[in-house]
Amino acid sequence: MVRVTVPVPGRSYEVTIGSGVLADAGRDVASVAGGTVAFVISDAAVAELWFGPLAASLQDAGLSAVLLTVADGEEAKSLDAYGVLLRQLAGREAHRDDPILALGGGAVGDVAGFVASTYMRGVPFVQLPTTLTSQIDAAIGGKTAVNLPEGKNLVGTFAQPRAVLADLDVLKTLDERAYRSGLAEMAKYALTLDAELLAMLEAGPGPVIARDPAVLEDVIARCVRAKAAAVGADERDAGARLVLNYGHTLGHALERLDAFAGRSHGEAIAVGMVFAARVAASRGAGADLTARTLRLLASLGLESAGDLPPTEEILGALRMDKKFRGRVRFVLLEDVGRPTIAEDVTDDEIRAVLREMGAGA
Amino acid sequence: MVRVTVPVPGRSYEVTIGSGVLADAGRDVASVAGGTVAFVISDAAVAELWFGPLAASLQDAGLSAVLLTVADGEEAKSLDAYGVLLRQLAGREAHRDDPILALGGGAVGDVAGFVASTYMRGVPFVQLPTTLTSQIDAAIGGKTAVNLPEGKNLVGTFAQPRAVLADLDVLKTLDERAYRSGLAEMAKYALTLDAELLAMLEAGPGPVIARDPAVLEDVIARCVRAKAAAVGADERDAGARLVLNYGHTLGHALERLDAFAGRSHGEAIAVGMVFAARVAASRGAGADLTARTLRLLASLGLESAGDLPPTEEILGALRMDKKFRGRVRFVLLEDVGRPTIAEDVTDDEIRAVLREMGAGA
Repeated sequence: MVRVTVPVPGRSYEVTIGSGVLADAGRDVASVAGGTVAFVISDAAVAELWFGPLAASLQDAGLSAVLLTVADGEEAKSLDAYGVLLRQLAGREAHRDDPILALGGGAVGDVAGFVASTYMRGVPFVQLPTTLTSQIDAAIGGKTAVNLPEGKNLVGTFAQPRAVLADLDVLKTLDERAYRSGLAEMAKYALTLDAELLAMLEAGPGPVIARDPAVLEDVIARCVRAKAAAVGADERDAGARLVLNYGHTLGHALERLDAFAGRSHGEAIAVGMVFAARVAASRGAGADLTARTLRLLASLGLESAGDLPPTEEILGALRMDKKFRGRVRFVLLEDVGRPTIAEDVTDDEIRAVLREMGAGA
Repeated sequence: MVRVTVPVPGRSYEVTIGSGVLADAGRDVASVAGGTVAFVISDAAVAELWFGPLAASLQDAGLSAVLLTVADGEEAKSLDAYGVLLRQLAGREAHRDDPILALGGGAVGDVAGFVASTYMRGVPFVQLPTTLTSQIDAAIGGKTAVNLPEGKNLVGTFAQPRAVLADLDVLKTLDERAYRSGLAEMAKYALTLDAELLAMLEAGPGPVIARDPAVLEDVIARCVRAKAAAVGADERDAGARLVLNYGHTLGHALERLDAFAGRSHGEAIAVGMVFAARVAASRGAGADLTARTLRLLASLGLESAGDLPPTEEILGALRMDKKFRGRVRFVLLEDVGRPTIAEDVTDDEIRAVLREMGAGA
């Protein structure tokens, strides 16, 4: 078991990573929150597997557990679903000391965190991420979110959890595609921030792919440390934290397009990382950056291009960032481990690289 | 013109109080926010009077103004109204740098603040309070809120505005009842925190009742200073800020009861302050506390008992606080200017005092 501190001024908290973490969750929740009832927000599939053991652990720690289920995936993140959860809490007379627990992947954590940060202007919140993606990324850092029909994650708060409890045993039950989606985020950390992790994965990703708990504990802790450092330096996403968006600018644009529907988040950002490597290469980055990126992703079982939507549609989707954020910002690597932020990538550069990657006009 | 700083660590801001503040609002908004479009949330009646001059001032400062109207009063504070506002912002492609302005009373400020603190995880927010209540209380301190069918203000955030701009000329157009409702909050500050203000009002409230701008500027600034000090000491409402709830425990309970419908917030807390004075008196507070309270409220034109709902209904409504907050907490005065927090007021004490005040069983 490893504990990593996320150093947010005044609200630091620990991420616990290990086998059997769920069995001790009750004690850990009770140590960071008061209250008498823990409200567990989860989806039906995850709850069926893990709510039972979690509830037992909470009960041992003197907390009764109430399950509130949400739809699977992004559907959980609608304003309607948010309102339903709030009314369920109020209907059950949830107190301001009662903790809210997110048991699930990134979508569950996003909506549960938004609920927890706004019900009675904030109640204690604990993340119990059940996917590789959420264990190494989404559950850490305090970004909460729901979607609007006009765009993803347009509504939310910055609100840190009291603790993050990541049980490695849970990952064994993840389906292969969901797990690989998490490996794409792991590749992101390796390429941008952790050269040792990159070396480990390049030396042989077998144990990670096989979900060997001993190796996973170390590897996940590495990713969490990288994220914790970025969050500690930049809670509100204006500086160091931007690097964590490596591959995500194009990735998010792809996710917005129906033509890309059915692909996972990890598949989208894998394509985004290849794209970013090619843009960087065309600007003079380390010559083997693209080749290394392609090799790494392939070794993790991630497709790195596949059927791309038409180039002009991708450009249109990229403009959503400009629309709401005033700019389109890419993380580029001068070489592995040396990220920079570029706001000057032109449409023509984007077109040229997408053409290299096989996208039609 | 007076400026009072609200000293919140890292996010201090100024409350500007004076005649003609609205005419300079554009410059003041531009000095605390970037962006190109100011989204002004208001209700139809207030907007008809004041959106025009505000928009002109914003335009002079290089900001175009978009008006988003909400329903009058508490109806503005539904989750549905919140969702509509968010979608209007996204539909109009509001950027993260574009400020949101609340132009109205407490309800408009509450919902606009919640929108501003959650749209894109927070955009710049400026309060332009148009009622006496919101100028001296609701607009300052960063509590945002919407209601659930299960209870008022059950959802919200702590999120400070960038500035509060209180134009005294606007108060001239307030109807008499709304203005008197604000006088009840003013009496609250006088009784709990500002003995000089109490002395001024006791010497003769005429100029305040006549809305004399020169006197109002001083008196409102006093209330704002008291609130700013409490907020600075206790942003999250766990200590010093509790005193600002003087009269509000019973007041909120009354507001929850249909039998009290049609009465204003100020009328409810006026009754609450008389109630608190009587409870304190029965516990040995300064002998003339009740008489002074009654005299003060009468001089401000506030009824201090009137037709009360049945005692057992009031007790039931008080239990809502216990339900959600785990306790019923009264602010009591040892004497004027000496507030304490009491969590041990018994149902029998409450019954006895309500009987004194003429409530039936």
